[in-house]
Amino acid sequence: MARLATRLTERLGIAHPILSAPMALAGGGALAAAVTRAGGLGLIGGGYGDADWLEQQFTAAGNTQVGCGFITWSMARKPELLTQALAHEPSALMLSFADPRPFAAEIAAAGVPLICQCQTLDHVRQAFEAGAAIIVAQGTEAGGHGASRATLPFVPEAADLIARESPDTLLLAAGGIADGRGLAAALMLGADGVLVGTRLWASREALVHERHHAAAVAATGDGTVRSSLPDIARQLDWPKPFDIRVANNAFIAAWAGREQDLKAAIAAEAPAYREAFAAGDPEKAAVIFGEAAGLIADIPSAGEIVERMVSEAVAQLDGARRFLA
Amino acid sequence: MARLATRLTERLGIAHPILSAPMALAGGGALAAAVTRAGGLGLIGGGYGDADWLEQQFTAAGNTQVGCGFITWSMARKPELLTQALAHEPSALMLSFADPRPFAAEIAAAGVPLICQCQTLDHVRQAFEAGAAIIVAQGTEAGGHGASRATLPFVPEAADLIARESPDTLLLAAGGIADGRGLAAALMLGADGVLVGTRLWASREALVHERHHAAAVAATGDGTVRSSLPDIARQLDWPKPFDIRVANNAFIAAWAGREQDLKAAIAAEAPAYREAFAAGDPEKAAVIFGEAAGLIADIPSAGEIVERMVSEAVAQLDGARRFLA
Repeated sequence: MARLATRLTERLGIAHPILSAPMALAGGGALAAAVTRAGGLGLIGGGYGDADWLEQQFTAAGNTQVGCGFITWSMARKPELLTQALAHEPSALMLSFADPRPFAAEIAAAGVPLICQCQTLDHVRQAFEAGAAIIVAQGTEAGGHGASRATLPFVPEAADLIARESPDTLLLAAGGIADGRGLAAALMLGADGVLVGTRLWASREALVHERHHAAAVAATGDGTVRSSLPDIARQLDWPKPFDIRVANNAFIAAWAGREQDLKAAIAAEAPAYREAFAAGDPEKAAVIFGEAAGLIADIPSAGEIVERMVSEAVAQLDGARRFLA
Repeated sequence: MARLATRLTERLGIAHPILSAPMALAGGGALAAAVTRAGGLGLIGGGYGDADWLEQQFTAAGNTQVGCGFITWSMARKPELLTQALAHEPSALMLSFADPRPFAAEIAAAGVPLICQCQTLDHVRQAFEAGAAIIVAQGTEAGGHGASRATLPFVPEAADLIARESPDTLLLAAGGIADGRGLAAALMLGADGVLVGTRLWASREALVHERHHAAAVAATGDGTVRSSLPDIARQLDWPKPFDIRVANNAFIAAWAGREQDLKAAIAAEAPAYREAFAAGDPEKAAVIFGEAAGLIADIPSAGEIVERMVSEAVAQLDGARRFLA
């Protein structure tokens, strides 16, 4: 199999510049380990902070080297989770969604590379101060939580800022990247690799209900929306400017523009939402995927996804000189 | 100077796969002609439909071949403008923002290639029915009017739809593309070229107030927002799902979330807005640029912008094989 070499593959000692997003709930140890075995690096999604679940997922990864990621504002309420994750000697520790600086010293002391996911240039500067080895520039097209910048212009602007202020920091693109075209484009934009969410969420190893997978396969990229409604229904206290990209389904339609009504009805709606999500109902609770769903037509293994992305990107990059007249 | 060759350059007989966006008010004949002379194809912005202004801009383009673009729903109220534009034998006629099909026959009869700018997959299918020679997949990061899809995942999804249903139709990427990195990325994503707005808006030939240019140079890509407020202030009846990306300035802050209040106060606010815009006030009226402003540090000639984009894209594409291990 062909390989892609960048500063990222060299620094991390991996074959391909592909990391899996540490997706809360969906990104467990089996998915992370499968991505690593395929030549990338898999990250367990530490999510909202369940110590037992986290332990199970590191166990599921077995002897395969994986990393771990946290929702920073949530982990900050249970910082012992960070200590727990670092005890597993992860290949990298990723922080997203809130100031990473309070946790930088502990991560550095453990000798674990810090990855900071960023949605604005101010986030990038915070990541520099936190000593991040790797910055992820995440675009609004990403599934799940994020903010408003779009991947295509955000990545080169982040690359320019890195070049000026912290040139040894590596850069990953995230948001909308589901195939080798997106991977090749990210490298042209100045990224050292990509962080892949939705495409790996749509894999056999992801902890995702089959009805949610079917919804993503059926969807086009037009069928998603950013919203705060799922977090209201789940009674999750997400800070600004973050909201979540999900399928634009019946749940969203029922409450769109009625955030206050949902809050007022939460005593009945929260359990109904939880039950619908657990049952995999694709209409009565959020289905969490991004615009990249429009590029997804099947649910293969994570290893096959990585192989397809690499071989397609290799073909695109190998043929790039055909455009030179 | 190096050249880039794609299906677009071959089909249109141009040196570089770069078209200028037909920006209302800002994209006059001087800008369009400068882009054509640099090896791309410039499009005059037909905008909201002033016959005298349109005539002046074709005069300003002189003997240089240019195209023309219209805001479809606005032109539909004065369809004689389309006839007027076609009488100038433009190199292409572009329609954006509403169903192009009612105008397809007249454009085809004139022997002029039709370009349809699309914000959703349904728009792409409408463009197929209209017989579009070229489809523009426009991402939400673009300055000015648009919708919600992001360029990076929308372009390959549009490319797949074109490959299945209308393989001779060409595809341009628009939104967030301001340099050779974005141009190279667009080609990797499956586009045949790019449509450039904000970067050419920030050129000497654009009909833009110097204080607006200064605001764009000072801005980062984080400093824009999509809003309907500028259209309310201008009393322009834009249909859904379109809104406009502008600088996130004092005007936006003053009215954010208060659309109804602005409508109620419009008798006083509309003339104040118009005066502020005409004076180039960068805070009291909208300044129309996209996320690509974060990649812009100067106001050169349009010809220099095209040259920079091409030479940088050539370098990126020529070096793409460095990623092959």
